[in-house]
Amino acid sequence: MKLDYRNLPGRNSMQIIEYIRKHNGAWSSPYPFVMSKEGSGCFFKDIDNNPYLDFGSQIASNPLGYNHKDVINVVKNYAGRSPIKYAGQDFMVKEHADLLEELIQICPKGLDAAFIVNSGAEAVENAIKICMRRRPATRYCVSFESAFHGRTLGALSLTNSKTVQKKNYLAIPVKRLPFDENAPEKLLRLINDEGGSDNIGSVIIEPVQGEGGYNVADSKMMAGIRKVTKEHGIPFISDEVQAGMGRTGKWWAIENFNVRPDVISAAKALQVGATISNKKFFPEPGAISSTWGGGQIIDMAIGMQIIRTIKKDKLLMNIQLQGNYMNKRMLEIESISNVRGLGLMRAFDVSSTRLRDNLVIECLKNGLIVLGCGKSGIRMIPPYIVSSHEIDLAVDIIKKALVKCSHKKFKHKGSICRFVNCAEASI
Amino acid sequence: MKLDYRNLPGRNSMQIIEYIRKHNGAWSSPYPFVMSKEGSGCFFKDIDNNPYLDFGSQIASNPLGYNHKDVINVVKNYAGRSPIKYAGQDFMVKEHADLLEELIQICPKGLDAAFIVNSGAEAVENAIKICMRRRPATRYCVSFESAFHGRTLGALSLTNSKTVQKKNYLAIPVKRLPFDENAPEKLLRLINDEGGSDNIGSVIIEPVQGEGGYNVADSKMMAGIRKVTKEHGIPFISDEVQAGMGRTGKWWAIENFNVRPDVISAAKALQVGATISNKKFFPEPGAISSTWGGGQIIDMAIGMQIIRTIKKDKLLMNIQLQGNYMNKRMLEIESISNVRGLGLMRAFDVSSTRLRDNLVIECLKNGLIVLGCGKSGIRMIPPYIVSSHEIDLAVDIIKKALVKCSHKKFKHKGSICRFVNCAEASI
Repeated sequence: MKLDYRNLPGRNSMQIIEYIRKHNGAWSSPYPFVMSKEGSGCFFKDIDNNPYLDFGSQIASNPLGYNHKDVINVVKNYAGRSPIKYAGQDFMVKEHADLLEELIQICPKGLDAAFIVNSGAEAVENAIKICMRRRPATRYCVSFESAFHGRTLGALSLTNSKTVQKKNYLAIPVKRLPFDENAPEKLLRLINDEGGSDNIGSVIIEPVQGEGGYNVADSKMMAGIRKVTKEHGIPFISDEVQAGMGRTGKWWAIENFNVRPDVISAAKALQVGATISNKKFFPEPGAISSTWGGGQIIDMAIGMQIIRTIKKDKLLMNIQLQGNYMNKRMLEIESISNVRGLGLMRAFDVSSTRLRDNLVIECLKNGLIVLGCGKSGIRMIPPYIVSSHEIDLAVDIIKKALVKCSHKKFKHKGSICRFVNCAEASI
Repeated sequence: MKLDYRNLPGRNSMQIIEYIRKHNGAWSSPYPFVMSKEGSGCFFKDIDNNPYLDFGSQIASNPLGYNHKDVINVVKNYAGRSPIKYAGQDFMVKEHADLLEELIQICPKGLDAAFIVNSGAEAVENAIKICMRRRPATRYCVSFESAFHGRTLGALSLTNSKTVQKKNYLAIPVKRLPFDENAPEKLLRLINDEGGSDNIGSVIIEPVQGEGGYNVADSKMMAGIRKVTKEHGIPFISDEVQAGMGRTGKWWAIENFNVRPDVISAAKALQVGATISNKKFFPEPGAISSTWGGGQIIDMAIGMQIIRTIKKDKLLMNIQLQGNYMNKRMLEIESISNVRGLGLMRAFDVSSTRLRDNLVIECLKNGLIVLGCGKSGIRMIPPYIVSSHEIDLAVDIIKKALVKCSHKKFKHKGSICRFVNCAEASI
């Protein structure tokens, strides 16, 4: 597939984009094209026939790439069925049992039950809810600096990413720990200074911070936090909405740290949200529910197939292999810093926000999708099926783009400047 | 279709149900069967070949009934596409524009933009968020007694239904108004006693309370609340997650009251969640978002088709006609009280919780699905395509079941007692 410089957005895309810009209440800074249904492996085309090498994987929601035959076959199975949305806590379908079975098989020992919901945010909301229900003295929850746990008000209270995400919104009480080796000591101080451990509903952590910029948790911190929470009987939640489901080369990111959580929140690659724990940890009937809890039949069937395909095609091994290769190739790139990540969840920093923003656009113009993160970071999360050849392609584009964008007088022009985060807007 | 007494759950269902019981963290009181893909109109079959006349419509999520040809055709269109879940605020597909266009066309004048999300709860969360963002002095939100707005912590704080839904959970500050004609006066008192109107983020109301038991708002109250909120510049949200999208015979329940809200929250019949308002009412980029915001391609396409089919087949008229007929037939039933509702959203009360619980089970054993609500209420929400003949069938079953369950010594037996809300458990 030839990756050419091109004008973005194309003419076909532009018309649809203009409509969405006017009528989407949440319009922010999307990528400058409209996706078509055409695609294969790590590549897809927009409706103007431009191909893209996708190192963004629909923000980790597309682990098997485009038009994977296993997934296509699942969707085909449902061609003659309606409704596919149903009230999953009041009525039952076989897919609910099948997905639970596949999911529990890959979960850490003891985590043998799950509540299927509609999104990562809902998975987090239910994770903190089931912990609070056990703890009548709860006065606050604990999360970490730079954490992102979702946008509903409970999950958002735990989030500590960008000001624009929280301004003026009412919140539930949350206290923060630093995302470094001082965290266990700070947690102990909280317990001492704030009236004891019973006041803490739960401690929630992303083993690899997603929106925060793929910061990998310090192993000592993780062990220390688990030790303190265990000793004080505080429920410990691993938020794996982005990093779970194989993304780090193990089924769950927390498994890289030899630590066992009380609750896992999952979503994205799973196609549905899930709050996972031991059946006995879940509260009495009625304490948690949702009309669409487990309620999209095709999503559940695809989620189940994704787990099966990861097993069948030994994709965890590919994630480890290609993740290491990606790391090696990134370390060769001059003028980038803080190369980090686990598995196929990798990031690096450049010298300024402006350079980062230009870099995202320049990669895009050469057919590569990467994502910005943090102040001056780039993150890359290709599908689990990515090959070394595709990593080489991506690294080559990044290298050339870096050289080009590093020129003092470099400046983007054209309609693309109205999309993504235009570097010119950040000067 | 013959509706016979039967033993529930059937053998095929039982095996799957037992698995779900053990591994669904939210297991509560589901209906005692597993649905198959077979069905037509208002009827579906379980996997033991038992047919049901469905007056529950998957809790209002299934407005066109089972295997409607228009919906089937949409699902068929996507048989060759993957992924169908995508990151809808960062990337764009044509379906997003198409759904927005169909949705805005049926919205009250001035509501010309929407943020598509994953559930009704998320639609409510975003509704109160966009209001708070405009109001930096917000100290609390206002909702009504018996309200149900969802289960995420923000939406749940607004909810005032059952204790089990909220026990021990941290909440954002919310004050309540009575759901009667005293509400406007009480709201004025709140404004005076609690430091002025600027402290109120928004007032949210269900024009017909869903889980609360299909209580229809008093017209004077509705006009009064809108008057007070307008005069004091307080945003007014109509939560139409259950009652919107045609369910009451008008596109939006609030239209039955000649009142215009600032924001509408929708979901269920729409197949996705939506926070609807004027484009200028929505906040700056980044203030609201979601990875799966607008992010399930088939759900969006079906939601759009549902709107088109309601128009094409003049279903709003059928909803009004059959709703009135249902009301008339219900008024003939002796020994029930408080017959209420709008359109195809109808409820009545019986003399005790025990009788109600027995009635739900007895109807079920005769192939009719109805839903419990409130202390001793039954609610019925058949698909929009329901006929007078089907209403007659349902009323006949209810009448017979009422007679049978009203016998002093009536008692259910068998495995069905482990499902729904078994009456014997409430003695």
